[in-house]
Amino acid sequence: MDLNDIVNEIKQKKSYLCIGLDSDIEKIPRHLLDFEDPVFEFNKRVIDATKDLVIAYKPNLAFYESAGLKGMISLEKTINYIPKNIFKIADAKRGDIGNTSSMYAKTFFDTYNFDAVTLSPYMGKDSALPYLKYNKKWIILLALTSNSSAKEIQYLSNVEGKKLYESVIEDSLSWSDSTNMMYVVGANRVEDLKKIRDIVPDNFLLVPGVGAQGGSLNNLSLSAMNNNCGIIVNVSRSIIYSDSSSNFEEIVREKALEIQKIMSDLLKSKGII
Amino acid sequence: MDLNDIVNEIKQKKSYLCIGLDSDIEKIPRHLLDFEDPVFEFNKRVIDATKDLVIAYKPNLAFYESAGLKGMISLEKTINYIPKNIFKIADAKRGDIGNTSSMYAKTFFDTYNFDAVTLSPYMGKDSALPYLKYNKKWIILLALTSNSSAKEIQYLSNVEGKKLYESVIEDSLSWSDSTNMMYVVGANRVEDLKKIRDIVPDNFLLVPGVGAQGGSLNNLSLSAMNNNCGIIVNVSRSIIYSDSSSNFEEIVREKALEIQKIMSDLLKSKGII
Repeated sequence: MDLNDIVNEIKQKKSYLCIGLDSDIEKIPRHLLDFEDPVFEFNKRVIDATKDLVIAYKPNLAFYESAGLKGMISLEKTINYIPKNIFKIADAKRGDIGNTSSMYAKTFFDTYNFDAVTLSPYMGKDSALPYLKYNKKWIILLALTSNSSAKEIQYLSNVEGKKLYESVIEDSLSWSDSTNMMYVVGANRVEDLKKIRDIVPDNFLLVPGVGAQGGSLNNLSLSAMNNNCGIIVNVSRSIIYSDSSSNFEEIVREKALEIQKIMSDLLKSKGII
Repeated sequence: MDLNDIVNEIKQKKSYLCIGLDSDIEKIPRHLLDFEDPVFEFNKRVIDATKDLVIAYKPNLAFYESAGLKGMISLEKTINYIPKNIFKIADAKRGDIGNTSSMYAKTFFDTYNFDAVTLSPYMGKDSALPYLKYNKKWIILLALTSNSSAKEIQYLSNVEGKKLYESVIEDSLSWSDSTNMMYVVGANRVEDLKKIRDIVPDNFLLVPGVGAQGGSLNNLSLSAMNNNCGIIVNVSRSIIYSDSSSNFEEIVREKALEIQKIMSDLLKSKGII
């Protein structure tokens, strides 16, 4: 999927919502446990209820890996079930080098058919290059995360007062451009979002932390949007676990629709649609 | 496995060798392709040929994940095949937070029966805590890696001239002590190894990069050993791919034995055995 495909999808759906498929067998509605593959059944219903409202789904690999082989089967079925026009993000936060990185790129882009994968920048450029060889595939680099201990490391300052996350983003500009690189920036980092937008005016930002983690959609959108929208906002638990009845998918849809409507207004106010 | 178990194993085997199971179906001896699970057959032969010479095995997750479900089956069989007294490291380089981190901890420590997992420090303490709740299980934090672009990020200096990797290690001292935390330090970072040993005198260091990546076993051992040995040296490709004949396991054993003998001498010269 290239930049235009993503921007077109945003304009058409009037949405920049990504739903995080942090699908945990302990938390899904109980009636689904009667199925052979409850996690896939859950994802299928979430996808059916929201696929016209979202531009991306983001399975969180930990939730599938922790179930062993069964989990990987649920993951594979889920990816194959997501419509082709929707951006598929592997939230894997990998970060290794050379040979190993090539193997992970193969895992996410070939073995499973993801469009993008989240990566940790700690090992530098070497960990990103093997992914960047793939055409129309994306890496989404952890820049500034929403968790409270992120500051311990990501806010460490150099001699010129530049924070680590800024150095990481600036450094990564020599790896690739906005055609295959995005950045993860937590929704609660509104002050920093403006600074990040200055460093990477054209790149998309993947913004988690709205909802369960407490970031405000309006503030972050107004701080971070560019002419192409430029942000994908992820919401996981506050949508997918919003109800546990046998009709949970209706509430899931309502929650997604609520967010999509706000996004539509914000896109209009910015003149993007 | 606790610290004593590891130290006893080192003393008994006169070795601090870990073999990295970066087992790639494209690179293993061709005659193994006749088996139903060639990667497991390869690992099985490597383990049989070396289990009295090594104290740890380190499957590199990327190599198993890239083969999809088949790969995960090979991994599971491999872990179950490794003798109980040998330390099992998941080279996974994960790094996520809270809920997700708990899921990864469950993956490696419960679903698969690893003793340790490698982690990236970029997200700070939050990403380590869920693993540290497990008794007798270990995290191995990326500190200073051996790849060439590591310096881009890991050598970034703060106002006092302290490098990022030093800050990471110092910061992590408030997360846990030497009973369940180790650090990854590349074998080619001999200058820094001394500095690291000063910051964490008691922790074990996992040192990759001897062999294919070119670090010297003597230099690094003399720089980094403590009274408990304190280092686990990983060698992957230069042992496991040392031969491709039908008797490859004999050469694999020879290569491992060669290294174990040097290690035995170094342990003696340091008075550890």
